Amino acid sequence: MEAKLGEFDLIWRFFKAGSESMAQTQTDQVLLGIGDDCALLGPDAVQSLAVTSDMLVEGRHFFSNANPQWLGHKALAVNLSDLAAMGAKPIGFTLALALPHADSTWLAQFSQGLFRLAQQWQCPLIGGDTTQGPLTICITALGHVPFGAAIKRSGANVGDDIWVSGTLGDARLALGALRSEWPLNQSSLEAVLPRMHEPQPRIALGMQLRGIASSALDVSDGLLGDLRHILNASQVNAEVLIDQLPISCTLAEQTEHLRRQCAANGGDDYELCFTVPTSKRMEVESLSTTLLPLTRIGSISSASNGTEPLLILRDANGNQLTAADSVRLMQSFDHFKSN
Amino acid sequence: MEAKLGEFDLIWRFFKAGSESMAQTQTDQVLLGIGDDCALLGPDAVQSLAVTSDMLVEGRHFFSNANPQWLGHKALAVNLSDLAAMGAKPIGFTLALALPHADSTWLAQFSQGLFRLAQQWQCPLIGGDTTQGPLTICITALGHVPFGAAIKRSGANVGDDIWVSGTLGDARLALGALRSEWPLNQSSLEAVLPRMHEPQPRIALGMQLRGIASSALDVSDGLLGDLRHILNASQVNAEVLIDQLPISCTLAEQTEHLRRQCAANGGDDYELCFTVPTSKRMEVESLSTTLLPLTRIGSISSASNGTEPLLILRDANGNQLTAADSVRLMQSFDHFKSN
Repeated sequence: MEAKLGEFDLIWRFFKAGSESMAQTQTDQVLLGIGDDCALLGPDAVQSLAVTSDMLVEGRHFFSNANPQWLGHKALAVNLSDLAAMGAKPIGFTLALALPHADSTWLAQFSQGLFRLAQQWQCPLIGGDTTQGPLTICITALGHVPFGAAIKRSGANVGDDIWVSGTLGDARLALGALRSEWPLNQSSLEAVLPRMHEPQPRIALGMQLRGIASSALDVSDGLLGDLRHILNASQVNAEVLIDQLPISCTLAEQTEHLRRQCAANGGDDYELCFTVPTSKRMEVESLSTTLLPLTRIGSISSASNGTEPLLILRDANGNQLTAADSVRLMQSFDHFKSN
Repeated sequence: MEAKLGEFDLIWRFFKAGSESMAQTQTDQVLLGIGDDCALLGPDAVQSLAVTSDMLVEGRHFFSNANPQWLGHKALAVNLSDLAAMGAKPIGFTLALALPHADSTWLAQFSQGLFRLAQQWQCPLIGGDTTQGPLTICITALGHVPFGAAIKRSGANVGDDIWVSGTLGDARLALGALRSEWPLNQSSLEAVLPRMHEPQPRIALGMQLRGIASSALDVSDGLLGDLRHILNASQVNAEVLIDQLPISCTLAEQTEHLRRQCAANGGDDYELCFTVPTSKRMEVESLSTTLLPLTRIGSISSASNGTEPLLILRDANGNQLTAADSVRLMQSFDHFKSN
């Protein structure tokens, strides 16, 4: 489940209210309802069940002429990314697919992308629905996580380091180039396009972070906006070193403005952002050498004591960014999903 | 998961093939994949998890001006009906909703219908997604069923009685009247409209049928077409007494042709069709007096031995219908979903 923006954020809160009034009567089975990356179901003394749904709509989440193979990959990847953020191991997924007409070439490519990723994580298609309609893909993914080991958004503590996996901003750099928002040479575009089309869910990392990370989420709508979900859920403030956000060589070649915007607020990264007590810094550094690069980007500075959490941004010299610069970086900037 | 028709049936088979090749590597967790009302997941020594997804698209599954309260009810009901057909008890559901714009009146009514049914079956909303797009509703429902007690489509045996719950055909009678396919006076229309708009998932019946029914499914696309899924999965032939199909007083007032067509092949009934050994006839009759009317409509006549299962229809006098009449009744007749 991704964070929603603006108008549709309001819609979701609407359903959340209705859901919460019921969940109170169901605490034996619903361990965690709406508001995290996945819901958690029980009761099971050994395993909790993580459940997440995402819907992709043509023209909103992907271009109308999107390569179907990439689309099949991405539709599953965004759901597996939610499972990863909870530390869950995929079990299977359902696919509900509306298509204007049955185009076998399209279907062959779509399912190739879909099943290749499914195979990689041993996550079989277990059911679903196909119907005629405007191209819409809805996947619900299920995963297991040992009871009590799920990594929620609400566990960050004062003093924890803030980490992020891989690199940020390439997907947004590619999107902007395709939309002629900025120039990008062909070789640079080719270098960053896979990050937009075929995001890699950080399943292995998520599972390794059980017992290490105090909170986690996947970066789908932009790092700073998503980090705010952790701050809100954990009721804490944070400081982030904006020039330490990990970026690719390609993004490093761009202007400071573009670098910062793409990395801090690009969206579609599908990396994990997580907090870890400083006492476990070595364990994260070890994962960083064996699994994939992990970068410490800031820390949880203080408790927010029930007020709106503060997110302070600092530059390479440790100086706090001006209010204007901070606001600009924290606003969702022309995000694909908020068109 | 509903049976699909025509072109989109072919699509689904496409994904089924890809799914099956993977499910073989996952038999420890996927107890039952695509092809029944729900998938079944494990491993759990006590409970299996039933999972089902359905997508409803404007103009295809409901009229564009559909009452949002009915729509909220129906979107959840069709999924709970799939759980009922497995004998599963609902745990919770996810909702993925695409909306052209955020209309608070529409949302209030939609969620009222949705949550009223959810409350009735103690099945809370546990997660999901909202986005802008053509009105599309995708619900994934989860349920528990004791390990080994799920009622599959594949368990029908020669000699079993065939039963159906409630009455059939009213939803189709209402739809046809609304589409001016046939005349229907206002009081009759009002009597049958609730069957079209607010189907009642047979959850309580499904749970009671554990250990009694040898196979079951929910009637969503029309009785005879859906019964064929049981015959195919169980590799058996059947005889059905077409004039014993249970119908409402309102449908009973219509012509024989319309009566038979609506009852045998109307669709959108969301009743349960199930098979039971004759030795357990008393137990079903007992449920019929305490829970809701259950009607014996035929029997499993013989094994189909790997060939296409035979479905023989008999009239009130026990005479076999002519081939032409049988074919006409077995063809999906101008079904809402097959427009």
